[in-house]
Amino acid sequence: MSYLSFIECAKCGEKYSSKIPLNLCHCGGPLLARYDLKAIKEKVDKSIFKTRNKGLWRFKELLPIEEEKNIVSLGEGDTPIIQAKKLGKVIGLENLYIKDEGLNPTGTFKARGATVGVSKAKELGIKTIAMPTAGNAGGSWAAYAAKADIELIVAMPQDAPEIAQKEAFICGAKTYLVNGLISDAGKIIADGVKRHGWFDAATLKEPYRIEGKKTMGIEIAEYFNWEFPDVILYPTGGGVGIIGIWKAFQELKELGWIGDKIPKLVAVQSEGCNPIVKAYEEGKEVSEFCTNASSIVGGIRVPKAIGDFLVLKAVRESNGTAVEVKETDILESLNLIARTEGLLICPEGATLVAAVIKLLKSGFINKGEKIVLLNTGTGIKYTSLIEAALPVLNIGDKI
Amino acid sequence: MSYLSFIECAKCGEKYSSKIPLNLCHCGGPLLARYDLKAIKEKVDKSIFKTRNKGLWRFKELLPIEEEKNIVSLGEGDTPIIQAKKLGKVIGLENLYIKDEGLNPTGTFKARGATVGVSKAKELGIKTIAMPTAGNAGGSWAAYAAKADIELIVAMPQDAPEIAQKEAFICGAKTYLVNGLISDAGKIIADGVKRHGWFDAATLKEPYRIEGKKTMGIEIAEYFNWEFPDVILYPTGGGVGIIGIWKAFQELKELGWIGDKIPKLVAVQSEGCNPIVKAYEEGKEVSEFCTNASSIVGGIRVPKAIGDFLVLKAVRESNGTAVEVKETDILESLNLIARTEGLLICPEGATLVAAVIKLLKSGFINKGEKIVLLNTGTGIKYTSLIEAALPVLNIGDKI
Repeated sequence: MSYLSFIECAKCGEKYSSKIPLNLCHCGGPLLARYDLKAIKEKVDKSIFKTRNKGLWRFKELLPIEEEKNIVSLGEGDTPIIQAKKLGKVIGLENLYIKDEGLNPTGTFKARGATVGVSKAKELGIKTIAMPTAGNAGGSWAAYAAKADIELIVAMPQDAPEIAQKEAFICGAKTYLVNGLISDAGKIIADGVKRHGWFDAATLKEPYRIEGKKTMGIEIAEYFNWEFPDVILYPTGGGVGIIGIWKAFQELKELGWIGDKIPKLVAVQSEGCNPIVKAYEEGKEVSEFCTNASSIVGGIRVPKAIGDFLVLKAVRESNGTAVEVKETDILESLNLIARTEGLLICPEGATLVAAVIKLLKSGFINKGEKIVLLNTGTGIKYTSLIEAALPVLNIGDKI
Repeated sequence: MSYLSFIECAKCGEKYSSKIPLNLCHCGGPLLARYDLKAIKEKVDKSIFKTRNKGLWRFKELLPIEEEKNIVSLGEGDTPIIQAKKLGKVIGLENLYIKDEGLNPTGTFKARGATVGVSKAKELGIKTIAMPTAGNAGGSWAAYAAKADIELIVAMPQDAPEIAQKEAFICGAKTYLVNGLISDAGKIIADGVKRHGWFDAATLKEPYRIEGKKTMGIEIAEYFNWEFPDVILYPTGGGVGIIGIWKAFQELKELGWIGDKIPKLVAVQSEGCNPIVKAYEEGKEVSEFCTNASSIVGGIRVPKAIGDFLVLKAVRESNGTAVEVKETDILESLNLIARTEGLLICPEGATLVAAVIKLLKSGFINKGEKIVLLNTGTGIKYTSLIEAALPVLNIGDKI
């Protein structure tokens, strides 16, 4: 099953046992799961994954669950990678791909983090989980917590998508709205955690959510026959996905399963909330709190990510970049990809279309390169952004 | 690739070439695709499907596309089958499963029909498709038509889910709302088809949509190691899914790929629109037009299905049944499955939970039988049905 061996602080390197519930390191750094990669290299042939039932649990050796019975699954992972020929032609790219995370349970890549995070919580005997969320993670964790019979407490901004609010609610999570940003919701949860002893599952405050996100990187490598594409663009809020893909890359490299090619990782944000882009441009190792964060893209509206230094490291070490897009370009991008590729994606994903156009113009991307846009969720949750004034016919009318 | 051999009328048996666009038979009956099953039996080993990339195009030998380049895919099919242990326990069933079609592109099983229907239209050189829809099929076909560069005209009831309206619109379909039922939209489309020469893709008015739906049956058989479960429950509007599963069963049987076990097929409707249930109970071979059809379940609100005789045949020959549920039980079922299994399903799917409870009480189902509920779509599109009055906290408040 799992080759999990210990947990390590991403900042100071301190090691922890994986047999007990863990949050942050005593130094305040986020903790990462480490595996016995040497043993995997000896005993596991990567061709085995294709023979297993679909879903991210195919990669169980590289996931942190010790006993199969603890896996809480709703059929997540193995989302399609679609070649976007028509959109590519419009933009001027010959090898453009979209990985569509909207085909996960709860319609978002958050399901990857939730399946692993909740499964590990179950394995460790945790009874109550609490988390702040922009909306989607709360909906996803509520679904998995319901199946696992674990109590969940979530707090999200009052203007979080109504669908995510209802998702969390109907799955039985204790759901609170907060008159503020996700960082304010985070403070309320952190206080409750201290006073009630709940387990804190905020972004990167537990080591396992990122392990689920990591599987996006493994799936991309496997799809391209264990090579990586040239560039992967990722809409960056908390940044767990881009850190996860970077972690997958490092593990696959150490396993000798991939070649030397490094994918350039591009963190995409909106001008309305761009702390990572600012820090990248200013050559800083950590970001500064973005005051007055405002964007129609809820998932990117994270003023200060706890894993900012890891995002910046992944971007720099992969020779990638960080780029912001205009708020006004986001809906236009959403429309463009729907009309050309038939994909109704989330606004977070739509930022990537605007970003790839910008990077092609700047010369960072060449037209022949293999580019993957990582669309993090379905647009079905965001149709309130679409205005459609449709003609109404009466019985007997003709078109 | 495909072993398609000819097209046959389901009513009078008349044969047609598959090389030209086809709608209904001259007798008015719907047309079905027939394959050279003898050749498949000789040349294809069913274990091959597991080795292929995931998605319903794994079963290409049993699908009607001749050339791979004509396949228009957004990653549909191979949806998860989830064992519902907690819900089963509440209801009193030991082997309850849910096939979750919400994990298809556009969030519904309609994507299966659309990928095959649009691909075949592309192969046949069709430029403009028109169809009436309750909403979801329109959204799905719009997505695939956009990718295929085929013009699509859809007409749907004015009270079709707003999300489906916007889905069709943003993907570039010419979208009309109709002040009436889907049958009224059907008349307007039929008139336009006559006058403009559009290709009519209404339910069962072209032979290929059902081929996509058929793959649900193949996937279920494969999941249970090429046996069928005891009972499959299916929410029935136009009924293409249940006919498709029945067709899959017959083809797999003729291929010798499955054992003798016949799954009982159960057509589930709502008391607000129950023409199939009425016809079944009255021993009739066709249904009567249901006047004053009214239900919160849009996909079931089909007053008279063109394939009603096939649905009734499938139900009777499989020793299944047809059952209606109370409108008031539907939302309760939606809540129950979310709280127990973490699945936010569509109201169509929720009718199955109410139906399975009813059939267990009546003795039609035994507690040890393997039961599959075929949830046809995601509940994300129907959160307007959920009422959630959530507490609002201010900065500094405590939980």
